[in-house]
Amino acid sequence: MQKFLLLFGPNLNRVEKRNPALYGTLSLAQIKDAVRESLADLSVELEMRQSNSEGTLIDTIQEFAEKVDGIVFNPGALAHYSYALRDAITDAACPVVEVHFSNIHARESFRHESVTAASCKGVITGLGWFGLALGIRSIIHSKKEK
Amino acid sequence: MQKFLLLFGPNLNRVEKRNPALYGTLSLAQIKDAVRESLADLSVELEMRQSNSEGTLIDTIQEFAEKVDGIVFNPGALAHYSYALRDAITDAACPVVEVHFSNIHARESFRHESVTAASCKGVITGLGWFGLALGIRSIIHSKKEK
Amino acid sequence: MQKFLLLFGPNLNRVEKRNPALYGTLSLAQIKDAVRESLADLSVELEMRQSNSEGTLIDTIQEFAEKVDGIVFNPGALAHYSYALRDAITDAACPVVEVHFSNIHARESFRHESVTAASCKGVITGLGWFGLALGIRSIIHSKKEK
Amino acid sequence: MQKFLLLFGPNLNRVEKRNPALYGTLSLAQIKDAVRESLADLSVELEMRQSNSEGTLIDTIQEFAEKVDGIVFNPGALAHYSYALRDAITDAACPVVEVHFSNIHARESFRHESVTAASCKGVITGLGWFGLALGIRSIIHSKKEK
Amino acid sequence: MQKFLLLFGPNLNRVEKRNPALYGTLSLAQIKDAVRESLADLSVELEMRQSNSEGTLIDTIQEFAEKVDGIVFNPGALAHYSYALRDAITDAACPVVEVHFSNIHARESFRHESVTAASCKGVITGLGWFGLALGIRSIIHSKKEK
Amino acid sequence: MQKFLLLFGPNLNRVEKRNPALYGTLSLAQIKDAVRESLADLSVELEMRQSNSEGTLIDTIQEFAEKVDGIVFNPGALAHYSYALRDAITDAACPVVEVHFSNIHARESFRHESVTAASCKGVITGLGWFGLALGIRSIIHSKKEK
Amino acid sequence: MQKFLLLFGPNLNRVEKRNPALYGTLSLAQIKDAVRESLADLSVELEMRQSNSEGTLIDTIQEFAEKVDGIVFNPGALAHYSYALRDAITDAACPVVEVHFSNIHARESFRHESVTAASCKGVITGLGWFGLALGIRSIIHSKKEK
Amino acid sequence: MQKFLLLFGPNLNRVEKRNPALYGTLSLAQIKDAVRESLADLSVELEMRQSNSEGTLIDTIQEFAEKVDGIVFNPGALAHYSYALRDAITDAACPVVEVHFSNIHARESFRHESVTAASCKGVITGLGWFGLALGIRSIIHSKKEK
Amino acid sequence: MQKFLLLFGPNLNRVEKRNPALYGTLSLAQIKDAVRESLADLSVELEMRQSNSEGTLIDTIQEFAEKVDGIVFNPGALAHYSYALRDAITDAACPVVEVHFSNIHARESFRHESVTAASCKGVITGLGWFGLALGIRSIIHSKKEK
Amino acid sequence: MQKFLLLFGPNLNRVEKRNPALYGTLSLAQIKDAVRESLADLSVELEMRQSNSEGTLIDTIQEFAEKVDGIVFNPGALAHYSYALRDAITDAACPVVEVHFSNIHARESFRHESVTAASCKGVITGLGWFGLALGIRSIIHSKKEK
Amino acid sequence: MQKFLLLFGPNLNRVEKRNPALYGTLSLAQIKDAVRESLADLSVELEMRQSNSEGTLIDTIQEFAEKVDGIVFNPGALAHYSYALRDAITDAACPVVEVHFSNIHARESFRHESVTAASCKGVITGLGWFGLALGIRSIIHSKKEK
Amino acid sequence: MQKFLLLFGPNLNRVEKRNPALYGTLSLAQIKDAVRESLADLSVELEMRQSNSEGTLIDTIQEFAEKVDGIVFNPGALAHYSYALRDAITDAACPVVEVHFSNIHARESFRHESVTAASCKGVITGLGWFGLALGIRSIIHSKKEK
Repeated sequence: MQKFLLLFGPNLNRVEKRNPALYGTLSLAQIKDAVRESLADLSVELEMRQSNSEGTLIDTIQEFAEKVDGIVFNPGALAHYSYALRDAITDAACPVVEVHFSNIHARESFRHESVTAASCKGVITGLGWFGLALGIRSIIHSKKEK
Repeated sequence: MQKFLLLFGPNLNRVEKRNPALYGTLSLAQIKDAVRESLADLSVELEMRQSNSEGTLIDTIQEFAEKVDGIVFNPGALAHYSYALRDAITDAACPVVEVHFSNIHARESFRHESVTAASCKGVITGLGWFGLALGIRSIIHSKKEK
Repeated sequence: MQKFLLLFGPNLNRVEKRNPALYGTLSLAQIKDAVRESLADLSVELEMRQSNSEGTLIDTIQEFAEKVDGIVFNPGALAHYSYALRDAITDAACPVVEVHFSNIHARESFRHESVTAASCKGVITGLGWFGLALGIRSIIHSKKEK
Repeated sequence: MQKFLLLFGPNLNRVEKRNPALYGTLSLAQIKDAVRESLADLSVELEMRQSNSEGTLIDTIQEFAEKVDGIVFNPGALAHYSYALRDAITDAACPVVEVHFSNIHARESFRHESVTAASCKGVITGLGWFGLALGIRSIIHSKKEK
Repeated sequence: MQKFLLLFGPNLNRVEKRNPALYGTLSLAQIKDAVRESLADLSVELEMRQSNSEGTLIDTIQEFAEKVDGIVFNPGALAHYSYALRDAITDAACPVVEVHFSNIHARESFRHESVTAASCKGVITGLGWFGLALGIRSIIHSKKEK
Repeated sequence: MQKFLLLFGPNLNRVEKRNPALYGTLSLAQIKDAVRESLADLSVELEMRQSNSEGTLIDTIQEFAEKVDGIVFNPGALAHYSYALRDAITDAACPVVEVHFSNIHARESFRHESVTAASCKGVITGLGWFGLALGIRSIIHSKKEK
Repeated sequence: MQKFLLLFGPNLNRVEKRNPALYGTLSLAQIKDAVRESLADLSVELEMRQSNSEGTLIDTIQEFAEKVDGIVFNPGALAHYSYALRDAITDAACPVVEVHFSNIHARESFRHESVTAASCKGVITGLGWFGLALGIRSIIHSKKEK
Repeated sequence: MQKFLLLFGPNLNRVEKRNPALYGTLSLAQIKDAVRESLADLSVELEMRQSNSEGTLIDTIQEFAEKVDGIVFNPGALAHYSYALRDAITDAACPVVEVHFSNIHARESFRHESVTAASCKGVITGLGWFGLALGIRSIIHSKKEK
Repeated sequence: MQKFLLLFGPNLNRVEKRNPALYGTLSLAQIKDAVRESLADLSVELEMRQSNSEGTLIDTIQEFAEKVDGIVFNPGALAHYSYALRDAITDAACPVVEVHFSNIHARESFRHESVTAASCKGVITGLGWFGLALGIRSIIHSKKEK
Repeated sequence: MQKFLLLFGPNLNRVEKRNPALYGTLSLAQIKDAVRESLADLSVELEMRQSNSEGTLIDTIQEFAEKVDGIVFNPGALAHYSYALRDAITDAACPVVEVHFSNIHARESFRHESVTAASCKGVITGLGWFGLALGIRSIIHSKKEK
Repeated sequence: MQKFLLLFGPNLNRVEKRNPALYGTLSLAQIKDAVRESLADLSVELEMRQSNSEGTLIDTIQEFAEKVDGIVFNPGALAHYSYALRDAITDAACPVVEVHFSNIHARESFRHESVTAASCKGVITGLGWFGLALGIRSIIHSKKEK
Repeated sequence: MQKFLLLFGPNLNRVEKRNPALYGTLSLAQIKDAVRESLADLSVELEMRQSNSEGTLIDTIQEFAEKVDGIVFNPGALAHYSYALRDAITDAACPVVEVHFSNIHARESFRHESVTAASCKGVITGLGWFGLALGIRSIIHSKKEK
């Protein structure tokens, strides 16, 4: 059984109360359940953490990177300026896939570039919470390939 | 049974001969098989087209957009300047998911922004050919959700 | 009787299926008829070509530039990056008027500058298909003036 | 009978004394006559105003916008920086078509973008005074279409 | 009793006819009354001037700056390019507070920077005509503090 | 009685020890008292929070946004880069007015643009702590107007 | 006897009340006298005009350009954005020398580029009112040389 | 005997009809002869292809790259934006030398940077058709050196 | 005996596990010892703090600035965007020297500018942990000089 | 008798052989004579130096700055990038007036900004060699004024 | 017999000790011999000069431009900022071909633009020392053509 | 005994006469003595060179790089544009540490980036002449570590 961390950045603790056209209507707890259900064909264990603080997110990446098989990370708006998070991901021992629920390329121009993306294995945007499940599938897949 | 188009832009007809660290070692035909196999749990039919020509890619999107349930599109380097492709995707009747095999955010700076991405449903980068399969999964998933 | 080419770039073959607020509801064939009708007071013969391919558009300009009295050209999104089309227009023996159906200055910022416009005699934007007829009128008018 | 305002911005009161390759050789009064003559097939009444002052041009737009069927406006160089004129056009009750005698896209780079254009119905450049007549034709045409 | 000038730039003479979501529905005269009423607890005398002309606005600032205790100034779109107004405010003997009815930071990007603001005592945006009253309160307050 | 949160970002816990020309000489506690006193004519209850941490500020906005009638927020230097705070303000259920004690438009160029401002109801700069009181007045005023 | 126009733009009617380190302490009338006195060795007649309005400045250039041997013009802050003035100078029949009292290159960055300068014969900055006299000398000199 | 491809991009099929100061007066066929003649001291076989289409140029590079000893390529205006051609050259098995007949550094600023050049062995500009011969000489020379 | 704070920003708690070519192989505790040892000729007492959180770093600077003779601060990637840290350093009562272990000028372009550096006494980059010792030497030296 | 240095930068030793429309037809020696003659009404002694080397120009400024009453300096193209010359002028004990023979504002865009100008007393452009004489007049004048 | 100058800028005196992948392993003296040998079929005489100083390079161009049939110039890194060299080349009586041993388009972005190139007849990059020989061939060829 | 070169660029020969707040009051000779004294605990021999010429500085680096254990280099303003110096440092056999006496990050924006820094081992700014001594200490330290 493989273990993954679902990690969420600022404002995502209230995701179900945000603009539903962009973020959907499920709470983080419901999203965790939905991801688990959608991965029923695979043997995965999920942890979930959220913080509005860049520093706590870095702490969390450092804590989990050696304990899990991968991290699926929605950094929220920090994606667009947190070079400190970028460095934390570069240093992480496990693969990190960045996921944005909304299609950031179709929103304000400051959201078109992610500075954290360069340190990740890959990026999935615009596919809602389902992107989290896809991120986990991709990590499991690439481990099999090696 | 749902039907999808795998569409590939310039230089991807020789994908197996390109830099394997970025593009892997499978040919397009092998990739089509791998995608089909990886989607064995779902009932999907795959078409595949490739062209080095922007115009032919637009023709193909126009031709298929009303015949398929979705298009998974790797526009290659055209992603970074083809506003004509962007318009074609905007006009497409079916959802289009953009897929890049390599993580474009970790390469040359001109690859950090995709101008076609704004018209797509979502974008998946850095996950190799497996990103194509994930793109199809996401379209099927979002149809179920509605 | 003077002869003109109506030339259309990418995605305009489906103009009647695009956003009607920007592009109206007439098909290219209907547009050709409407232009002819609107020019009933003048003696003009119209040819019409469309292509989604930059290369074919250049071929067409080369082919027609010596056979017609002028070209009225809607380059679509290629206007914003095709320096090759710009060169083709510079080299054309006949006058070329660039026409955009929508007012490109009121849309996304990448549409605010046309790189092909510098090689044209003039530019008409925002007046729908009627801009094509006006473009032809302007060429006929300027020939009389000389 | 429809009524239109021909409105001219800075330096156009001396248009016949400017560079003839760019502006032609007719005076404003002669241009007004030429426009009227060229619209002989239509029933139009023309008013004409010119000012070198941004403020007076805004006053004039405010005064005429509810009294005429449309304004054809050559803002001269103010097109490139007058956000105040842009706001006046946005607020105008009648359609405004921006006309430049020269092809501004083929001149100095500061002339490539018009900030007033975004508030207009459309823009016509490079077709000399004849562009004014075409602008009026386009407003009459679009009223018929509705 | 302290005396203040309410000064308005281009297009604000028709403020009640503009986009009500941005500018409200009161005319300038009604706004003057509303400001006076809202300052009933203070002893203030109000003058009001409006012009669509940058030059007249500079004339007015020069005329009033030594006769009033402060100027509350909505420069309209001139805020974004009138360095001449900026210089006039720098030279003014009395404090000037810049007020925009709409939140300029939430509109088009050219409205995000005010070049006149650097010469003002402060800036109030997004609070409608009430911002004018607040501007006057702030000047009275800061005089008391000295 | 209406309730408001005075919220302060980084370095403002020591506001009385900073450059007095920019920030005045009152401590946060004294500022709270001064604001209350200056609003003696209105029935308001004030809460005050300060944090040097972006994450804690987001937590605080989330906590208070449904409990207060409005937030008056001095984000300090975070105004210039914290897109995460911007998102938190966008999501807030109550109006937020951004206040800067100094006139940020007259300081270093990096302070000329506030990225959080776009999500606020309005912005007040350069009027010292008194701007906080004005911000509260504006929220009370706009509630009456509805 | 040769005749020259001393032309002054916005805020220069109060030049003696501005920052004396930048603008000196003489009024416009005193400056006119000082220029005349400094040119006592030459036979010149001076006219002087000032306006805070871009439009009036253009009117004045148009009026005088055929009546004088040259114009010495301090456009004030309009130098940095008035493309309309630039066009007026381009069209002027007589030579125009641009003069700034202060050294604009040593002030705020927006003052480093003059858009009107490109249409002038030459530019003199940083030499106070004496620059006006030098500008006149240069025009007289260049007439002799021809 | 070594074999080379002379490859030409858009508008070069009519090279002899373009601006002779930039492109000379020889047709492509004459250029091929002139290159062969100028290489009479070497044993080379020349193929020649031209297309106005980016896609066909990529097809041609793919087709020839393994059959020839080198490609001398004048991409025309595509040099300035075709990242797809850049990728095709990167993937090519043989060396590619980019040749421009005119000195692109002395023309419009958009021609100062070539995005395809980074993937080439070298670049020759400004030396007319003779640059093609020099490009071939350089490939032959570098093979001898190894 | 003088007292100094060694302060470290994000990701430096794991410095010995990062890229050794950039950061060396010593842990923070070992670095503290090495710095102390290297300063054996001077009488210094060292405190050390590290945090991944911008807010905690500001708290720490505020806490220590009046208790120590100087701070030697490696802000990590926060150097490139934390204007809040910049303000904290500006407000600090003691001198702060910024130290980067790697030569940030030789890495990615976003690392070429430090926004915190402007508020520091000086900056030392590229000299590994030894830069910390040099920073302390420089503060002691400059105190002697006064 | 006052003493001045005429200092010339790169390529000006051959000024009479350059483009005469920009630089005139006089050699440096003839220019020196012409300047002296044009200043016959004043009591001045002229030295002249020219170098193509930035370093020698700095040496010369250092050598002369304490021996002369002023330097009139045509830095040639170094004006546009030599921050080292800028520093030398800042450090100079005597006033320096920068002179360009041609109107740099009307030439290529890289010539529109002078980085050395910020350290000078003033700048004169476009008035040919006569600008040198005017520069000397201005220094003498300003000494009298003090 | 025709005579050419091989001119080399900064750091090229030690070319054989630089990065051999970029610059090869021949010394300047060996390069001169190799060029001569490679031009054995032509009757040429070669001079060679090198300097690390921009001023000396300008001196050398001035000295040789009238004595030789052409200059082949590797300006080294000065190509990217020396507008003074650009002016010297513009003024040169003989043709100058710029040669870079490495492909500057494939290196750091500051090397992508050459400011000296605009004044040259042509540019050859990426072909090692052999580019020098090709440059000479091109000058001889173009003389024959005239 | 290790040997080091203290190398100084433009304007530093008069360092004691420059702005003392930025550069201190010691002459170069006194600085050399102070550095030696401050390094009394180490066995070092110092050479010192200064030049106002970029070319001579490159010559000096080439001459000394193989004769000394390291170079401590204050390039003055050349740091901000001399790519030729950057190349010389890249090619140098010994380590080079760049030192600026003033904190360049706190001065004009053109001083915020050093283009020479990328080729150096490290950079020390803002610590006065003492930075030179620290630079030498760092080179000695890093040799011991290897």
